[in-house]
Amino acid sequence: MEAGLPLPSSSLSQLILTQDDLKKIAAYKAVEYIESGMVLGLGTGSTAKHAVDRIGKLLRQGKLKTHEQALSLGIPLSDLDSHPVVDLAIDGADEVDPYLNLVKGRGGSLLREKMVEGACKKFVVIVDESKLVNYIGGSGLAMPVEVIQFCWKFTASRLQNLFQESGCVAKLRTLGEKAEPYVTDNGNYIIDLYFKQSIGDLKAASDSILQIAGVVEHGMFIDMATTVIVAGELGLIVKNK
Amino acid sequence: MEAGLPLPSSSLSQLILTQDDLKKIAAYKAVEYIESGMVLGLGTGSTAKHAVDRIGKLLRQGKLKTHEQALSLGIPLSDLDSHPVVDLAIDGADEVDPYLNLVKGRGGSLLREKMVEGACKKFVVIVDESKLVNYIGGSGLAMPVEVIQFCWKFTASRLQNLFQESGCVAKLRTLGEKAEPYVTDNGNYIIDLYFKQSIGDLKAASDSILQIAGVVEHGMFIDMATTVIVAGELGLIVKNK
Repeated sequence: MEAGLPLPSSSLSQLILTQDDLKKIAAYKAVEYIESGMVLGLGTGSTAKHAVDRIGKLLRQGKLKTHEQALSLGIPLSDLDSHPVVDLAIDGADEVDPYLNLVKGRGGSLLREKMVEGACKKFVVIVDESKLVNYIGGSGLAMPVEVIQFCWKFTASRLQNLFQESGCVAKLRTLGEKAEPYVTDNGNYIIDLYFKQSIGDLKAASDSILQIAGVVEHGMFIDMATTVIVAGELGLIVKNK
Repeated sequence: MEAGLPLPSSSLSQLILTQDDLKKIAAYKAVEYIESGMVLGLGTGSTAKHAVDRIGKLLRQGKLKTHEQALSLGIPLSDLDSHPVVDLAIDGADEVDPYLNLVKGRGGSLLREKMVEGACKKFVVIVDESKLVNYIGGSGLAMPVEVIQFCWKFTASRLQNLFQESGCVAKLRTLGEKAEPYVTDNGNYIIDLYFKQSIGDLKAASDSILQIAGVVEHGMFIDMATTVIVAGELGLIVKNK
């Protein structure tokens, strides 16, 4: 394990590490993939925040240098319109399957991330080991689908029917005691899909979901991650595509 | 030709009919497909307006009867959440190819129509003969794609690259002298695609477009129309799937 990680490897198995410690360890490792001058795409979740903090520190220490125009930001946040090719994206994930396919968006954010991470040469995902699943949906938690507000019930029903054989249940994501619909950064709703069994061929599932007219995007990131860094109690595992 | 059409067939070839006359003739014919009590989906364009007017008249005359709960509206406008199965949709189109595939949305409206018309048992399209094309895009006019506002230039560039071999040009739809972006009823932008040649397999093209993360929906209505009524100078042609 390299210098710069928050804990020396010898003590990893002797300490009780919180999930947040594990995320931080993975995030620090991911930041080692960054080189000065790269155009970066950075996620918004709790894991990505550790990477952002780390990058900020390295920039202040002069160990990383950014493009001039981005210096005022501290961290070069990519805008695809000005940087259509992003060198490296770093982000967390809600699920990672054995083929490095991901579920993202349980925190409500998936579409902009998918655009940025789909435009990347390298996409490094950082997770703690609780996010590893045998198949997409295998955690029993939500696979989010962003839909337009118009006739969302109809869209939810079509989504549920699509995966009937996998025991799919579709629920509108809501917020607070009043259960108001959650609204995404693009003004849409989220339908959370819960699966009892694997949905099989993910690319076919993706196309079927996207063919529904009310669907904007879904939270499966298929064949996009190039590296997944998994932090567990016994250390880091780096999986490459 | 049936009674109730605005012009007797014998005079069709003797009069100079405007494009609007032709639309009206086709719309009146389409309305004959309606039966009392049906759940209807009605479009928003200039052709659909003629159908709406005609239905309103038949309702007032008592020749058509609606569901009770919709009487106050005059015309039973379907809401997919309460009527997930629509019996019949009537709408215009911007292009119709020989296989009854359509382009819609040059007027800015495509997504909600696609949701309603995709939920229909029968979808009757009414056009004047100027809308018939040999292939989708063959009129040289726009095939619209609804995209999220975030990084639209990047999405436009990906769309143009997708159909590079067909000489595709992608343009943001704008309004007025200031060329402000046109905003759809769902708060999105429209990228208009212009093709110099056929884009080939439409289902493959559709999937490729929908796989781009910033895309919400496109204006190709593939394999959706069950009947197309074409009004021309020499009369009506009814094409069935």
